[in-house]
Amino acid sequence: MALKSWVESANQTGTDFPLANLPYGVFRHGHSDRIGVAIGDQIFDLRMCASDGLLAGLASNIVDACTASILNPLMSLGPDAWSALRARITSLLSAERASTEEQRRARAMLVPQDEAEMRMPAQVGDYTDFYASLHHATRVGKLFRPDNPLLPNYKYVPIGYHGRASSLVTSGTEIRRPRGQTKPAQSSEPTFGISRSLDYELEIGIFIGAGNALGQPIPMEQAERHIFGFCLVNDWSARDIQSWEYQPLGPFLAKSFATTLSPWIVPLAALDPYHVPVAARAPEDPKPLPYLAPGSAPAAFDLDLEVFLESAQMRASGKSPLLMSRGNLRDLYWSPAQLLTHHASNGCNLRPGDLLATGTISGPGEGSEGCLLEMQHRANPVRLPTGETRRFLEDGDRVTFRAFAEREGLPRLGFGECTGTVLPAG
Amino acid sequence: MALKSWVESANQTGTDFPLANLPYGVFRHGHSDRIGVAIGDQIFDLRMCASDGLLAGLASNIVDACTASILNPLMSLGPDAWSALRARITSLLSAERASTEEQRRARAMLVPQDEAEMRMPAQVGDYTDFYASLHHATRVGKLFRPDNPLLPNYKYVPIGYHGRASSLVTSGTEIRRPRGQTKPAQSSEPTFGISRSLDYELEIGIFIGAGNALGQPIPMEQAERHIFGFCLVNDWSARDIQSWEYQPLGPFLAKSFATTLSPWIVPLAALDPYHVPVAARAPEDPKPLPYLAPGSAPAAFDLDLEVFLESAQMRASGKSPLLMSRGNLRDLYWSPAQLLTHHASNGCNLRPGDLLATGTISGPGEGSEGCLLEMQHRANPVRLPTGETRRFLEDGDRVTFRAFAEREGLPRLGFGECTGTVLPAG
Repeated sequence: MALKSWVESANQTGTDFPLANLPYGVFRHGHSDRIGVAIGDQIFDLRMCASDGLLAGLASNIVDACTASILNPLMSLGPDAWSALRARITSLLSAERASTEEQRRARAMLVPQDEAEMRMPAQVGDYTDFYASLHHATRVGKLFRPDNPLLPNYKYVPIGYHGRASSLVTSGTEIRRPRGQTKPAQSSEPTFGISRSLDYELEIGIFIGAGNALGQPIPMEQAERHIFGFCLVNDWSARDIQSWEYQPLGPFLAKSFATTLSPWIVPLAALDPYHVPVAARAPEDPKPLPYLAPGSAPAAFDLDLEVFLESAQMRASGKSPLLMSRGNLRDLYWSPAQLLTHHASNGCNLRPGDLLATGTISGPGEGSEGCLLEMQHRANPVRLPTGETRRFLEDGDRVTFRAFAEREGLPRLGFGECTGTVLPAG
Repeated sequence: MALKSWVESANQTGTDFPLANLPYGVFRHGHSDRIGVAIGDQIFDLRMCASDGLLAGLASNIVDACTASILNPLMSLGPDAWSALRARITSLLSAERASTEEQRRARAMLVPQDEAEMRMPAQVGDYTDFYASLHHATRVGKLFRPDNPLLPNYKYVPIGYHGRASSLVTSGTEIRRPRGQTKPAQSSEPTFGISRSLDYELEIGIFIGAGNALGQPIPMEQAERHIFGFCLVNDWSARDIQSWEYQPLGPFLAKSFATTLSPWIVPLAALDPYHVPVAARAPEDPKPLPYLAPGSAPAAFDLDLEVFLESAQMRASGKSPLLMSRGNLRDLYWSPAQLLTHHASNGCNLRPGDLLATGTISGPGEGSEGCLLEMQHRANPVRLPTGETRRFLEDGDRVTFRAFAEREGLPRLGFGECTGTVLPAG
């Protein structure tokens, strides 16, 4: 039976943040940025906990990390420190374990979520984006190479590329439609102008905890010990810019105008019960090369993902956002551990707070496409409740991602929202 | 007539660092990292200058930036602040302008270069690598597509991709040969092992000074005002890893194991007299799209570049390093200003200390190839003075880049060295 919290909203059906979750974030309340943990509709302020002595007895480097205004110091401490802190927070917020006196003191550390502004949770040194969904790679590949959608390396190499860290923004930041070079198929020359094929990409972000030294790979059996937690990522993409610029060195300005992160980082410890085998590998697929061979424990995660779209007209007329697709993190061809081990296999150093994103997460069937590009082959565009239609995003469109882990006998864990609204080009 | 310095070594023929250069770097002497300026064989310690009052009268944000242990704060101040500081340093180090008393005080601020350890000059938030040499792109393209070496976008889009910031290292850092996935043409499946095709890439790095806000492009006429200065970059590349992994999202682990920077950043102001027109554009080439149209002033730079190779056997037998190639920065198809303006054209924010590299700089003729990959078509491998031969780098090889600007009537400006020695795979 799951523990209950004395924070009543954490026990309500449908909350994203029960006691079993305890995601970390950075919030602004008053004039300072502080580290907190989401519990029900509240934030448990860890800086206040540290100064009030509620973390007494934990190692001093853990307590110090809780007083920072960014999660990188806590991330750098590694999984034993995270376990110790998580156990203490669980105890303080538990109805069964916290004494009446502890509950009284801890209650003073709560800040209502609706009074706080969420900030970037970590200083991201490097942001890497992968391409780990076989279904996404296949559907996108079919648009370009109908007979041969998957390139020969796909089932051997976890394909990835470096993304732009400077333009990572938090959920709720408005997204300015970019300009760029595009070349319509019928033109002989490109032009520079407003992108007309703006898209979202549904992804999960993997925050690195403790890093590795340059030149020191991370073996598979150690990989998950380097993962601090997961968030949602919207890797906004301008498809018309991308198709013209991406040869031969990959996507660049088609992506670097903005990437949105959800503000709460769900710890790997909270997701541990949702480990499942990778779903997208078939018996005839090649075995991973030995350096990427999974251990006996399942390395994928059963995490449901949803994409919602709301146009300006829908908002004005009070319509609910439209569910565009559903996916699941288990449908990736490569597990988070494989992505991480591959990344460091050449000796590349990962640092605390570095971000790896999975790439668009799509499932095998219609209704599980993680981006609009994959829906282009449909005979009809997506129809919104207002009668509007969409092939790509229009100005005023708001895209919202949600994720949750759910299993019989366990409380549902949510990720909160990853949302952004498209502004007209400046 | 150029000014002389009272630092005698700055007036000697062949020095990289005359009074007209004054490159910025970060050095360690004793226990602290400090900002300094190279002058002859000395470092002029700007932190000591600040605390001794030698910068009095300059704006306080300039003086404060000189006391930092990294150049980012100074970079963020923009060109008017850089001019003011440069004028003061020039005056203090000038034999004609500095009073006897100023010379006496300034002499106490000198640290011999051979007593200091050079550090990473800036915290690089994002590192972007371009592909701006038409000659490089053409020679490399020929290896893959003999009849059609240049892709259709090349003459319109300054092709670039994001690189890895975490593995940037300073000159002198040893380079561990990476492992990775490779697939020889005759094999049906890839294997994971030691890279056998390790290469260098001769590049110039462009450090961003003041940045731009997300969503705010930088027009061409403003571009150079955002450039703090230039350094040398060796973008080490594992060609066998690269050829297998790079489709469709570009180079990744083939590059991210290490990238070497020279420690001194030559200010744009020092290079201003070496502005020349872009050399690699032919009359029949398409005009740049309007957002990349150069102004009337020349936007390329006449900067000579040299690559030297020294094997372990050469070192042991006292042979001089072999000059492998010579190039010139003017031979790029795109100017630094065009690279910067293109990068921000979608609204992507550049931050102080971000690094743009040009991509391999190659000239049109044999002997001007900026990497070994471009020499693969030669009938014979490169022959070293010991009788050894090279197609790619071997363990123990030391690669050194140099750069200098030289013109009749002006003192020669050098960049110092960008060097690294290959270690065997770990």
